[in-house]
Amino acid sequence: MVENILNDLTIALDVMGGDQGPLVTIPAAILAVQKSSQLHLILCGDEILIREILVEKQLLSHPQLSIFATTEVVTMDEKPSSALRSKKNSSMRKALDLVKEGKAQACVSAGNTGALFATAHYVLKTLPGVERPALISSLPTHDEMKHVFMLDLGANVFCDSTILYQFGVMGSVMAEEVESINKPRVALLNMGEEDIKGSDHIKMAATKLIENESINYVGFIEGNDIFTNKADVIVCDGFVGNVALKTCEGVAKLVYEKLKYVFSQHLFARFLGRILSSSLKKLFKPLNPDQYNGASLIGLRGIVIKSHGNANVKAFYSAIFEAIKEVERQMPIKIKNKLEQGLKEK
Amino acid sequence: MVENILNDLTIALDVMGGDQGPLVTIPAAILAVQKSSQLHLILCGDEILIREILVEKQLLSHPQLSIFATTEVVTMDEKPSSALRSKKNSSMRKALDLVKEGKAQACVSAGNTGALFATAHYVLKTLPGVERPALISSLPTHDEMKHVFMLDLGANVFCDSTILYQFGVMGSVMAEEVESINKPRVALLNMGEEDIKGSDHIKMAATKLIENESINYVGFIEGNDIFTNKADVIVCDGFVGNVALKTCEGVAKLVYEKLKYVFSQHLFARFLGRILSSSLKKLFKPLNPDQYNGASLIGLRGIVIKSHGNANVKAFYSAIFEAIKEVERQMPIKIKNKLEQGLKEK
Repeated sequence: MVENILNDLTIALDVMGGDQGPLVTIPAAILAVQKSSQLHLILCGDEILIREILVEKQLLSHPQLSIFATTEVVTMDEKPSSALRSKKNSSMRKALDLVKEGKAQACVSAGNTGALFATAHYVLKTLPGVERPALISSLPTHDEMKHVFMLDLGANVFCDSTILYQFGVMGSVMAEEVESINKPRVALLNMGEEDIKGSDHIKMAATKLIENESINYVGFIEGNDIFTNKADVIVCDGFVGNVALKTCEGVAKLVYEKLKYVFSQHLFARFLGRILSSSLKKLFKPLNPDQYNGASLIGLRGIVIKSHGNANVKAFYSAIFEAIKEVERQMPIKIKNKLEQGLKEK
Repeated sequence: MVENILNDLTIALDVMGGDQGPLVTIPAAILAVQKSSQLHLILCGDEILIREILVEKQLLSHPQLSIFATTEVVTMDEKPSSALRSKKNSSMRKALDLVKEGKAQACVSAGNTGALFATAHYVLKTLPGVERPALISSLPTHDEMKHVFMLDLGANVFCDSTILYQFGVMGSVMAEEVESINKPRVALLNMGEEDIKGSDHIKMAATKLIENESINYVGFIEGNDIFTNKADVIVCDGFVGNVALKTCEGVAKLVYEKLKYVFSQHLFARFLGRILSSSLKKLFKPLNPDQYNGASLIGLRGIVIKSHGNANVKAFYSAIFEAIKEVERQMPIKIKNKLEQGLKEK
């Protein structure tokens, strides 16, 4: 059990989450504590399983790792409402409880997105002025040095104009903090750039963003401009964001496969393919962002990082470091302040 | 004016539509009639402009080309309702009127999508059993020999379950006719594969597709599986489809640019990049489908092909040939029959 374990930085891990559970999450946790001596990780999950893996690695009594024994697991296809109601002793729930109780500063999970979202929303509650949390991540742009933040990536199926507006504010804070951008350019993803395009709630969200003078709203943006550095923050509902993000992943895979075929057809290219291999991998990696660093669930009174369900050790390790960065940035308090600023201006 | 011009195959062109209007559409029309001796094209647009270009090309009295003089142009940023109400003598409207009057078998336009959609809907009307027309196009898959049809790509912002169901039926007919697939696999684009995922109207659309036994409904599909040949037809609302399609375009451009950079960094690669140039172009071209063949507006009592607004001569020429193919396939009557079949089974 957890006893007096709070160091400078404590993060709770849902070690049972994800397609491979502890086989991925525990090796990633070990890598993380080896990298950072200030980090303490609480491994929430099946105690026997966790002990087995730690014994095997001869790290059972590692001073930076502690075990929080849980007896239930939220499965990947479980209904969010059922996970919330009947899995109160799951690794996911307990990791979130630790954040709520102040025993951990953040939680990382590769588990069922819907269940994590619903449970985090219920346990941690949203910040004042935030109706719904959102999943946010950064994507590459044509400019090597710049990224674009996109939200919501799948936490909410539908979002009305107020929710989209709040996402714009939250995304703006994120870009300001993470990329150190003064007045980040916030855009709404739409099916055209013209004011007349899209649904009524998107048009109303635009009006609300314009009214908040602390937000640098730059208008509607189309799917083909996500990567062209026309905005620092792109806002959409979770359905659209999820489809767009996964479509990116699909196109990148398609192009990668076809490219391999093109290379294989030419003798010199085959040779060169090997030389270029690492450059090509580097090129395609950022197009699957939640594979490499985890997406943040923002708008809550605590920090939650969602890693991809099929994350490997390196990806889950990156998600842990994403959590550390968010703790350092104190995102929740900064979002709260920005939203209050918007309300005062109204 | 048009007089006794009906040959075997007559297509009306909105020559004023698109970013470059007649400068693109007329050279494309000339190419098309040079390619097909059975084809007759009616050039709807500003008579003086059209004559000027034809005189310059020494083709003013080409037997396969005739001019239908119009006095108005629908601009690219015009509201669909305003185009419909006050541009009754526009090149777009007249090209559609010719289809309605049976003087042309199809219409091709690179003009304002919303205006084309609204005007085509008003002039041609939908087929019995179809509430809304949809924009459909084919995308590549990992299997070189197979394509996937996706609809709606932007004609309708929101679609309820009945409309999504009808799109499934229309897409199935398209895949059957164009790709000669027996019982095409129809999927709904969603933010997860599990039955519990997505909005209520998507779940209801799934139930309706299951009930129509002539449709081979295969379930929900995610963005990353658009290209993996898991379905022959993917159905979504116009907002999601538009964002997904344009995101494809954006990712393809991003990868292409970064790839050029990778090549430029290596001496051998620079050399090889030139050798591979045509293979690479071939690879990226299909990822911007409406750039090369035009998307069809299906569900109407006539054939309408929408070419990309910034189509070049080759792309608009391809759109004309897409129209020819659809005339040969007799899509409207086939969709009507399939929808009636579904109704009988209920």
